[in-house]
Amino acid sequence: MSTSEQPVPRLERPEQVTTVLGLVTAGRFTLFDWLAADAAHAPDPGARIELSRFAAAELAGHPELERAAADHGAVLADVTAPYLELFDAIGRRTVSTDWWERMVRTTVAGGMVRDLVGLVVEHLADPGVAADALAGRDLTDLVAEEVGRATDADPRLAARLALWGRRVAGEALGAVQPVLGVVASTSGTDLGALAAPALGAISAGHARRMARLGLAA
Amino acid sequence: MSTSEQPVPRLERPEQVTTVLGLVTAGRFTLFDWLAADAAHAPDPGARIELSRFAAAELAGHPELERAAADHGAVLADVTAPYLELFDAIGRRTVSTDWWERMVRTTVAGGMVRDLVGLVVEHLADPGVAADALAGRDLTDLVAEEVGRATDADPRLAARLALWGRRVAGEALGAVQPVLGVVASTSGTDLGALAAPALGAISAGHARRMARLGLAA
Repeated sequence: MSTSEQPVPRLERPEQVTTVLGLVTAGRFTLFDWLAADAAHAPDPGARIELSRFAAAELAGHPELERAAADHGAVLADVTAPYLELFDAIGRRTVSTDWWERMVRTTVAGGMVRDLVGLVVEHLADPGVAADALAGRDLTDLVAEEVGRATDADPRLAARLALWGRRVAGEALGAVQPVLGVVASTSGTDLGALAAPALGAISAGHARRMARLGLAA
Repeated sequence: MSTSEQPVPRLERPEQVTTVLGLVTAGRFTLFDWLAADAAHAPDPGARIELSRFAAAELAGHPELERAAADHGAVLADVTAPYLELFDAIGRRTVSTDWWERMVRTTVAGGMVRDLVGLVVEHLADPGVAADALAGRDLTDLVAEEVGRATDADPRLAARLALWGRRVAGEALGAVQPVLGVVASTSGTDLGALAAPALGAISAGHARRMARLGLAA
């Protein structure tokens, strides 16, 4: 059945490519920031080492992104800044009160940030470097195991974390429209047609992650 | 002129090698932690990106350290833990009140931690992996330039940071004896002969760094 939906234009002009490279970079540095802070609060050296390494892995491939931005006439830090601000706001509005909330925050909001960035990258005419930069280990499995052990032993924790996960998701979903707005305005592209499917896809990804964590979405 | 000083024994038994691998790892994760926190407080996205990348670079070569520890019958996180605790204590006792104190803290204490670790690594019969892990970009030049600009414009800042650098150095020097104590007790080696030259070498390195920062040591 055909619909009257407008197709989303391919992003290929230099200002379109560089703003998406900035979005990818902002997603990675946001995750770096959250994971590094998580590592600093880890309950034992093993978890600290593991999370620090997840954080560091977010920055692999950064020189390639920098070079790609330069090839298209932009300084990567400049095109990254507006997106960093939007993602940082998610972090400021989801300050956790304990280790489990912290892990759920990074898994849930981090997963949604990744999904949002990935959806925009799909519209690049040549995803190349940007798509490569999105590859990387997913925290969900590691966290799911730990959260599962903790909530099995404490049903009230499960209820609290489910509520918390929904709140975090709400804050992260709130960034979708502003992020697409920045992509649109800096690249001169109407991305209106992307908003509704993006919200749907990101919500679906969130539901899968919550299920994996054993929490009611 | 000959002295009656005892030579420091070569470290080559498995428990000697693994405790030094733990010391190296603790130094790197401490620097990661400080640099990542610095990045989170950076005044602009460019500095944030730069410091995050310095942080991530601290963890390069971690798999090699993990493998070397396993080859000698130890779990790297376990042999790292006691040193991490000692280095974390330096961090807790040098909480900065502004960006410049933060940069001086990481440069000064980070440099001294690196020097201390490097001095112990020199006594490994086969430095190999441990020495490779110590290679890495030094923050001093980057920070020196920025601190220089700020203190040129504000002599009172220069005086405050010089005082702060001396305090940070005192806290970091306080870790030398306990760190050598842990190396000695976990490896069953008398490192008493190393303490005095280590304090001297680390102090000299500190003086050079302060000079590079343009601060009175």
